[in-house]
Amino acid sequence: MSLLFVAPDRGLSSWKDAIHEVDPNLDVEIWPQVDTPKRVQFAVCWNQPKHVLDSYPNLKAVSSLGAGADHLLEDEFLPEDVEICRVVSHSLVQQMKEYVLGTVINIQRNFVHYIRQKDEQNWQPHNHPLASDVHIGIMGLGELGLPVAKQLSQVGYHVNGWSRTSKDIDGVTTFSGKEQLAPFLQQTQILVCLLPLTNETEGILDLEVFKRLQSPSWIINVARGEHLVDEDLIYALDSDLVKGAWLDVFSEEPLPDRHAFWNRSNIMITPHIASITQPSEVADQIVDNYKRALSGMELNHKVERELGY
Amino acid sequence: MSLLFVAPDRGLSSWKDAIHEVDPNLDVEIWPQVDTPKRVQFAVCWNQPKHVLDSYPNLKAVSSLGAGADHLLEDEFLPEDVEICRVVSHSLVQQMKEYVLGTVINIQRNFVHYIRQKDEQNWQPHNHPLASDVHIGIMGLGELGLPVAKQLSQVGYHVNGWSRTSKDIDGVTTFSGKEQLAPFLQQTQILVCLLPLTNETEGILDLEVFKRLQSPSWIINVARGEHLVDEDLIYALDSDLVKGAWLDVFSEEPLPDRHAFWNRSNIMITPHIASITQPSEVADQIVDNYKRALSGMELNHKVERELGY
Ligand SMILES: NC(=O)c1ccc[n+]([C@@H]2O[C@H](COP(=O)([O-])OP(=O)(O)OC[C@H]3O[C@@H](n4cnc5c(N)ncnc54)[C@H](OP(=O)(O)O)[C@@H]3O)[C@@H](O)[C@H]2O)c1
Ligand SMILES: NC(=O)c1ccc[n+]([C@@H]2O[C@H](COP(=O)([O-])OP(=O)(O)OC[C@H]3O[C@@H](n4cnc5c(N)ncnc54)[C@H](OP(=O)(O)O)[C@@H]3O)[C@@H](O)[C@H]2O)c1
Repeated sequence: MSLLFVAPDRGLSSWKDAIHEVDPNLDVEIWPQVDTPKRVQFAVCWNQPKHVLDSYPNLKAVSSLGAGADHLLEDEFLPEDVEICRVVSHSLVQQMKEYVLGTVINIQRNFVHYIRQKDEQNWQPHNHPLASDVHIGIMGLGELGLPVAKQLSQVGYHVNGWSRTSKDIDGVTTFSGKEQLAPFLQQTQILVCLLPLTNETEGILDLEVFKRLQSPSWIINVARGEHLVDEDLIYALDSDLVKGAWLDVFSEEPLPDRHAFWNRSNIMITPHIASITQPSEVADQIVDNYKRALSGMELNHKVERELGY
Repeated sequence: MSLLFVAPDRGLSSWKDAIHEVDPNLDVEIWPQVDTPKRVQFAVCWNQPKHVLDSYPNLKAVSSLGAGADHLLEDEFLPEDVEICRVVSHSLVQQMKEYVLGTVINIQRNFVHYIRQKDEQNWQPHNHPLASDVHIGIMGLGELGLPVAKQLSQVGYHVNGWSRTSKDIDGVTTFSGKEQLAPFLQQTQILVCLLPLTNETEGILDLEVFKRLQSPSWIINVARGEHLVDEDLIYALDSDLVKGAWLDVFSEEPLPDRHAFWNRSNIMITPHIASITQPSEVADQIVDNYKRALSGMELNHKVERELGY
């Protein structure tokens, strides 16, 4: 039996080392060097190429290398009986809390203005609102969205949260389901997307949503590029409907040179670094799920195919 | 009896209004329009000119308009028997927490790089350390430093604190007195100054201090410009001893055009906006201290002349 890594654009030797730290006896292979396809029973994937996951007749389960599993759910070459799981870790959560908190403070406290003013040798104070008057709305209250919402509330912001099923969270005003999307947006200025990418959520950040936000509104997208309708954001910025955006994820990454986002001064771009999976932190989860898959046990952090997350 | 505001570069009508919200019957005057100097018994000051505070024979006490009182302690025209107090408020603390947390996240998560890279159309990921590996040292654990230290620790950073007298703070490694300055610095990478400006602390951010910090080190000065030896910071940056600085306060404000800080790309400059006193939030404290001064009661938030804070 072997555990296979499929992640073409990643250096995978540190992953192999991390797995061997947990269990030195495991047989770990790195695609495309696979000696005996029949031995592969578990695959850990990130942006796997097409026609790879149908090459292993004894594949029992696949794990995402990160928190999102949309690349696995969308893979038409993944056999239907193969189970899907993902990794979740303290460090992924911690990094996402830092990223969203940092972007929110940068927006509230005008830090982007001050950084640019410094470069222009310009001393110009700007007013800033009180944190309690800044209304943040988190879309998605899962492994990442929930702790992000709690952290923002702890720092003093007014926080709303929206999820599929209803929730009760201390310090956070919660909304759920399609019916409550409108009231959620009407009480939100800074909209943070932490939804999984599913049929229901693809393209959710569109003009209809932007129109409902409180002004001046900002969009923070740290989930998936496909959540955002790029042209709608450009239109909303150019027509002063939205004040600005912090984007970490894009439909095409790296963001192509010709993309309109580069030319809008109120769009901040980070190169998909909001939350990076550390091999040493999740190796034990992967080994655990590998052994669970071999012995037919229920996987941890399982992804539901019907729900799409 | 009257309460006098002396703050030449501030619009003071909102202050007068805020005082009258608390007590509509108070006689509030705004320097330099003072009809009967003998009636002035309490003055609220910010950067008062020389030779003003010796003009009121019945002055009992003065309050700073903000958290710092160094401009009062240094005023040779303030009679020695006049008591000094200052304002402290939830909003001042909240804003300072946001500012320091924001600058720390910007440093740790390379946001300044990403903002500048965006403007250069450059997609380039940078590694970032885990929050728990970022060692922050807060100098001054008073009304502002203590809550700032606790907030940083709550978000996940490793926090050290240094004060004059020893303290015991959950989640913060504490040091005190001159003897423990060296070990405090040796365990610190990002040094945050939240000391009051006194004879003891003036010029404390100098080359000797920078040399002891863990590398890569950063300086955040949000206290007073005179805490920092400007030339030493320039030297330390140019010789790679210090990686960068976020500065909100300067010996001369606005920072003069010719100042070397403007030409160093790793110095961020904000125009003294870290924490702004809101009239409505402190008017009741001022009125309370005014009445205390009139009736000879002990003032709140009193400043000790001997200690200098
Ligand atoms: N930028 C980065 O570096 C980075 C790093 C890691 C992850 N991510 C992305 O972050 C996102 C969140 O990840 P996660 O692990 O927190 O996801 P998760 O644990 O699966 O949570 C998903 C949340 O979204 C809600 N949701 C799902 N479909 C919904 C719908 N149709 N309407 C309303 N709410 C819906 C769920 O509601 P219920 O609670 O009711 O089920 C749940 O609260 C993913 O897109 C992931 O790819 C990005
Ligand atoms: N940038 C802005 O917008 C802004 C806004 C507000 C305030 N400030 C500045 O922020 C600073 C802090 O204000 P604060 O209200 O927090 O002051 P504070 O309450 O008076 O606290 C002072 C702290 O510094 C410590 N300290 C004083 N002298 C020391 C020495 N020689 N060695 C070691 N520690 C010493 C004190 O130690 P003990 O606890 O042992 O007494 C105390 O912990 C001031 O400089 C103020 O002017 C700036």
